[in-house]
Amino acid sequence: MAVIKDIQNQPDYRNMTINKVGIKNLRYPIKVLDRKHGLQHTVATINMYVDLPHEYKGTHMSRFVEMLNLFRDEVSLKRISEILEQMKKHLNADSSHIEVSFPYFIEKKAPVSDSTGIMDYTCIIKGSSDKDGKLDLVSEVIVPITSVCPCSKEISDAGAHNQRGEVRLSTRFKRFIWMEDMIKIVEESASCDVYSVLKRVDEKSVTERAYANPKFVEDIVRDIAIQLKADDNITWFSVSAENFESIHNHSAYAHITSD
Amino acid sequence: MAVIKDIQNQPDYRNMTINKVGIKNLRYPIKVLDRKHGLQHTVATINMYVDLPHEYKGTHMSRFVEMLNLFRDEVSLKRISEILEQMKKHLNADSSHIEVSFPYFIEKKAPVSDSTGIMDYTCIIKGSSDKDGKLDLVSEVIVPITSVCPCSKEISDAGAHNQRGEVRLSTRFKRFIWMEDMIKIVEESASCDVYSVLKRVDEKSVTERAYANPKFVEDIVRDIAIQLKADDNITWFSVSAENFESIHNHSAYAHITSD
Amino acid sequence: MAVIKDIQNQPDYRNMTINKVGIKNLRYPIKVLDRKHGLQHTVATINMYVDLPHEYKGTHMSRFVEMLNLFRDEVSLKRISEILEQMKKHLNADSSHIEVSFPYFIEKKAPVSDSTGIMDYTCIIKGSSDKDGKLDLVSEVIVPITSVCPCSKEISDAGAHNQRGEVRLSTRFKRFIWMEDMIKIVEESASCDVYSVLKRVDEKSVTERAYANPKFVEDIVRDIAIQLKADDNITWFSVSAENFESIHNHSAYAHITSD
Amino acid sequence: MAVIKDIQNQPDYRNMTINKVGIKNLRYPIKVLDRKHGLQHTVATINMYVDLPHEYKGTHMSRFVEMLNLFRDEVSLKRISEILEQMKKHLNADSSHIEVSFPYFIEKKAPVSDSTGIMDYTCIIKGSSDKDGKLDLVSEVIVPITSVCPCSKEISDAGAHNQRGEVRLSTRFKRFIWMEDMIKIVEESASCDVYSVLKRVDEKSVTERAYANPKFVEDIVRDIAIQLKADDNITWFSVSAENFESIHNHSAYAHITSD
Repeated sequence: MAVIKDIQNQPDYRNMTINKVGIKNLRYPIKVLDRKHGLQHTVATINMYVDLPHEYKGTHMSRFVEMLNLFRDEVSLKRISEILEQMKKHLNADSSHIEVSFPYFIEKKAPVSDSTGIMDYTCIIKGSSDKDGKLDLVSEVIVPITSVCPCSKEISDAGAHNQRGEVRLSTRFKRFIWMEDMIKIVEESASCDVYSVLKRVDEKSVTERAYANPKFVEDIVRDIAIQLKADDNITWFSVSAENFESIHNHSAYAHITSD
Repeated sequence: MAVIKDIQNQPDYRNMTINKVGIKNLRYPIKVLDRKHGLQHTVATINMYVDLPHEYKGTHMSRFVEMLNLFRDEVSLKRISEILEQMKKHLNADSSHIEVSFPYFIEKKAPVSDSTGIMDYTCIIKGSSDKDGKLDLVSEVIVPITSVCPCSKEISDAGAHNQRGEVRLSTRFKRFIWMEDMIKIVEESASCDVYSVLKRVDEKSVTERAYANPKFVEDIVRDIAIQLKADDNITWFSVSAENFESIHNHSAYAHITSD
Repeated sequence: MAVIKDIQNQPDYRNMTINKVGIKNLRYPIKVLDRKHGLQHTVATINMYVDLPHEYKGTHMSRFVEMLNLFRDEVSLKRISEILEQMKKHLNADSSHIEVSFPYFIEKKAPVSDSTGIMDYTCIIKGSSDKDGKLDLVSEVIVPITSVCPCSKEISDAGAHNQRGEVRLSTRFKRFIWMEDMIKIVEESASCDVYSVLKRVDEKSVTERAYANPKFVEDIVRDIAIQLKADDNITWFSVSAENFESIHNHSAYAHITSD
Repeated sequence: MAVIKDIQNQPDYRNMTINKVGIKNLRYPIKVLDRKHGLQHTVATINMYVDLPHEYKGTHMSRFVEMLNLFRDEVSLKRISEILEQMKKHLNADSSHIEVSFPYFIEKKAPVSDSTGIMDYTCIIKGSSDKDGKLDLVSEVIVPITSVCPCSKEISDAGAHNQRGEVRLSTRFKRFIWMEDMIKIVEESASCDVYSVLKRVDEKSVTERAYANPKFVEDIVRDIAIQLKADDNITWFSVSAENFESIHNHSAYAHITSD
């Protein structure tokens, strides 16, 4: 077989460094850390990028996927720094970036009947490594919640509008942080958390708990932010709440960041 | 300019008629009929297909878009049959199909304060014409609604879980039918309809109305189906309701068709 | 604890049978049959419905999820009939329906270098059981492919526009059918199949193979339909091809069904 | 009518300022500036936020939509600063933010036949105003393009894989900038631009132009960045290119920002 030209390796004369180049929206089966069961099988959507110095024409896209294949046994917060270092090495890059988004499942008992359900959350791990090997890790969870409107409850003779909402919490931290703990902070700050199985006794319980605990999107992000500010493991956070309003066809939204 | 070969027009020997061939997901600005204002500007996503007899290799994709350009002044239920006939003629086809999906806006006053808002709905017009020129028209609306859970209300000491839902109603009919009338049937069959602007007096009103009017997804589709069965203009219908449950991360769903 | 009223079990007087009622868009971790490895872990989106006789007010939504929990070890084509029978029994229904959609991964070697990649497909299993216990199973795959335009190749001095496309193939069958076999039929009918890892020698190979093998969407669905018609295990099929045209911002589309 | 309590206006004691609070995902009909026709009707998805000082419990969500209704005649880059000032005034806020995303249509003639088509782009206007009234405007376009792979062309005996891609370009600027000009920069930097109508003579032309002009995602963002760096009206930019690879089921991606 004749030698095949390496176009990507050719010199480039535009003097223009590229911040990020790589692959996006790769669907991939992974195992992630699970506090209760050790490892959990799930399916991720993955983005992987490196920088490209101004003197090179292109990067080698196939190497990103090959590297991922090496780590297939576990793509988790704990292994991200290794993956990032391998990316820099195999792609001759100064910096590397990875984003791994996946559904994560936790067994969760209904509050009264103890019926077991499996709740689904979306988790996102983001990692970057710079030319000095400095690691930047962000852990993110998207948690479905219930919110009851305090205004609607106060002004109405009976009932109160409520709805499903979604809280997105991102953190930077000193020591490893479990997704389970981030999810817990969010669920405890909503009017009520949501479940996959609820028997009638449970439905009575969550309805009454939510109604006793009305919260605006503003309240939800504030109550989460207060806990994060008090936690000395958290070095940065961003938290937003979006309510899929039951009385409107648009969302109510609030966002706090520690920046 | 030399003659350019027409590959699509070449004969095909696989003896395989194609049911539908054409263009899909074309984003296109259109005007549609608006009962109050005559015509309304909106943006559609359009699919257009014809059949392809077994003896031809391919259809001429560019003609679909050209034909649409001719009708740009009004793509509505009233003009669909003309478009379908033109499609058959210009593409030498026996049958033609079009699907036009678009957001549709209706000014809607808040129930107590009379504040004006603009509610958005999704409407879909589907038309087919067969080789005898027989027209099949389906009109579809997707309407956001509020539903309050009757079980939750009954068994709880206070409050009741409620949520945004979405009702999808499709009809076939003898005489022209306004989207506005289909939307009205849906909104009146929910626990409460939704609004884009609600002042506090309105929020009190819709909260109390919804709470006084609890409905399962089952109730919503039944109450709509009863009205459609009693309407001698409606020759066929399909109605589904999906509630984005506030206590779960999945939906409750019900569907009735007159088939 | 006092007895909690069962609102859903109350009689209904509207005389309106509901075709389908149940849960929609439940995200759930499952294991499915994998021809090479026995079972494969993946994450599904699941819909489950039963009919509701006219005399009942509502169904019991929590039982759908509970039943699914029983089958967690394997939700596959082979177990669907059991799940459907259990649904009818536990929900006192005449008919039951399930739709399970999931990413499915197959190891696939690059054509020349033999580099191993993991290709992702979307698979959908649909099952229904009627009041006589008659089972209706549909197996569906969504397969990404490459298509090179025959017209563009023929009329141009060099090159030819090509693009990623997506083929959706659904079948009914007499004997069990592997997703792997349905995927193979689709991939062999495209201009070329797609890969997750391609080294330079492989890229040369797939480029040349695709260019030597130009196909319209019309050709792709016809070539698949011919094979399905000739296969006496297939009792029904529907196949569509959608090309995300590289020269347009809309798709080209073709559809054949054996109906 | 009794006075209805204003819960949102109540004091809050958590000492936690909220960065952004408001409405999200409101679908709304708007008119935008169109260089050729003056104004263009389209449909936007709109987010509007203000900050919330720590001493207030909540914001007044209905006012966001009411304010938008005042500007319905024209929601464009030129009117954004007015809207932002009104938001601060009517919501007693220090800062305000708006994001308006909409399809934008431009008539575009096919390159040889001159057939008229209507191309669709996605445009996004983002504006913020801080407590000193300092305005920050970002103009963004998402432009579909064709890219031909230089490596595939070089190493293959014939043909080259190509695909639809999407370029997202955001700019900050000194003087008003037309979306049309931003779109032009992107289209001229791709292997070829895309069209809604192409006759055979045009298809020949775009195939040959693209094949003569192979570009990696890296080349596309570099060629755009070079032009923006040389333009003294542009004070900041971010440009990314995503190719929906025809040989893979994932994307190739590159990003340059002037930061």
